[in-house]
Amino acid sequence: MVEIPERHPRRTSLLSRKKIVDATKKGLLADSAMIAHGRGEAFDYLLGEKTSSSAKIAIKESAARLRAAKHPVISVNGNTVVLAGKSLIRVAAVLNCPIEVNIYYRTEERINKLHRLLEKEKENISKEENPEGWIGDWKSAVKSVEILGKDDDGRIKGLEGPRAICSAEGIELADVILVPLEDGDRCEVLISLGKDVLVVDLNPLSRTAKMATVTIVDEVSRVSDILLKYVIENSSEITDWDNELILKDALRIISDNSKN
Amino acid sequence: MVEIPERHPRRTSLLSRKKIVDATKKGLLADSAMIAHGRGEAFDYLLGEKTSSSAKIAIKESAARLRAAKHPVISVNGNTVVLAGKSLIRVAAVLNCPIEVNIYYRTEERINKLHRLLEKEKENISKEENPEGWIGDWKSAVKSVEILGKDDDGRIKGLEGPRAICSAEGIELADVILVPLEDGDRCEVLISLGKDVLVVDLNPLSRTAKMATVTIVDEVSRVSDILLKYVIENSSEITDWDNELILKDALRIISDNSKN
Repeated sequence: MVEIPERHPRRTSLLSRKKIVDATKKGLLADSAMIAHGRGEAFDYLLGEKTSSSAKIAIKESAARLRAAKHPVISVNGNTVVLAGKSLIRVAAVLNCPIEVNIYYRTEERINKLHRLLEKEKENISKEENPEGWIGDWKSAVKSVEILGKDDDGRIKGLEGPRAICSAEGIELADVILVPLEDGDRCEVLISLGKDVLVVDLNPLSRTAKMATVTIVDEVSRVSDILLKYVIENSSEITDWDNELILKDALRIISDNSKN
Repeated sequence: MVEIPERHPRRTSLLSRKKIVDATKKGLLADSAMIAHGRGEAFDYLLGEKTSSSAKIAIKESAARLRAAKHPVISVNGNTVVLAGKSLIRVAAVLNCPIEVNIYYRTEERINKLHRLLEKEKENISKEENPEGWIGDWKSAVKSVEILGKDDDGRIKGLEGPRAICSAEGIELADVILVPLEDGDRCEVLISLGKDVLVVDLNPLSRTAKMATVTIVDEVSRVSDILLKYVIENSSEITDWDNELILKDALRIISDNSKN
């Protein structure tokens, strides 16, 4: 791919695209990861490539639910690791919760590659200064973030085959799961198990978006940066959440942007 | 990728996706082809995955302009060959016009691979029965379709570098170009050279969609099948075309579908 000019109006989007293309070449992602990314690009384009007020409210709600959880977990697939892995390690460090690498088309090779990448990023992030507003020993907070997913010792009840595999200490145990870019079937099953499922999905019409407890209709790397801020602030309470209202607002934005 | 059930409601879309993934593995497509396909999928989803009445009108207009052209050409990139190559060979046989393989990120290897694929498909199509409503010697009509693009003996004036390369007998000579999935810059330059540029683009907000003489906002394989019917019927005249009206209607459909 060609060089992206510094002042290109869609530079961030093009840089994310490059990350996905490069990661595919390195064997980190499934065959269809680039197609999924392209779909996301189109929806993000229609959403104006920025975080809406309603998405911010959904991120705040997610922060409150993750903070109040007994066993929170952040479940990441390949695209999430590539686009937002670093920010989510920071979020996990603040929440003191594990990250589970959990991919839909599971292969040991990809699990291991994603695992290694996250461990390397943990190492780098542990050397950073404390994130703004956070008090404590950052190095040890980051180092204590467990990266799960290599062990296939857990199962998601109600699913069959490789898609059911999870970590016993991660998704199986969790009461609240932040799972960006989730599959619709799995989302439905996790909900039916009584878990809070917080998803990030750029398509407000997807089954995942409709099934989730809280749907953040926004791009995962933007979400992760804002989520970090909110989990540090810890200033919001869990509300009587109306997810449909959030989806409707996202559709309104798409509809408005399509009119112009 | 997994098997797609016969009765899956989005079977056609999933089969197209599979074609793109397989072609990528075979080295037929550029790095970003899958991402472009994913973007298309999202827009097609919002358009209801069917050809709208306004898209049909645009296809009919394109058929009339191709029929009336002195030197029509169909310019195809990798995704177009993979998704609609066969139908477009039939269209070219009816129009008695060449097909030019012309790709944005030009490499000799990909040009040659796409060339070979089209020649193979030509061979198969020449053995088919006459398409419905078409009278004549189908075998010789198909065999006489020239596949251009290997020779880099033409230039698109106003462009620099590899993007300017074209065939002298194809795009350079042509007065009317059907070019599905075109890049915005190139579309603009071709228009400025006084050519009729007929594009297929699922994003009615893209620069290509806005620049083109006639924009067909629809999925390329559906378009090609309908176009074949219209070029055979040959029942329509060139009109005083209002492309903006077509784009507005596509946006209205997206906006309506986003409301529900």
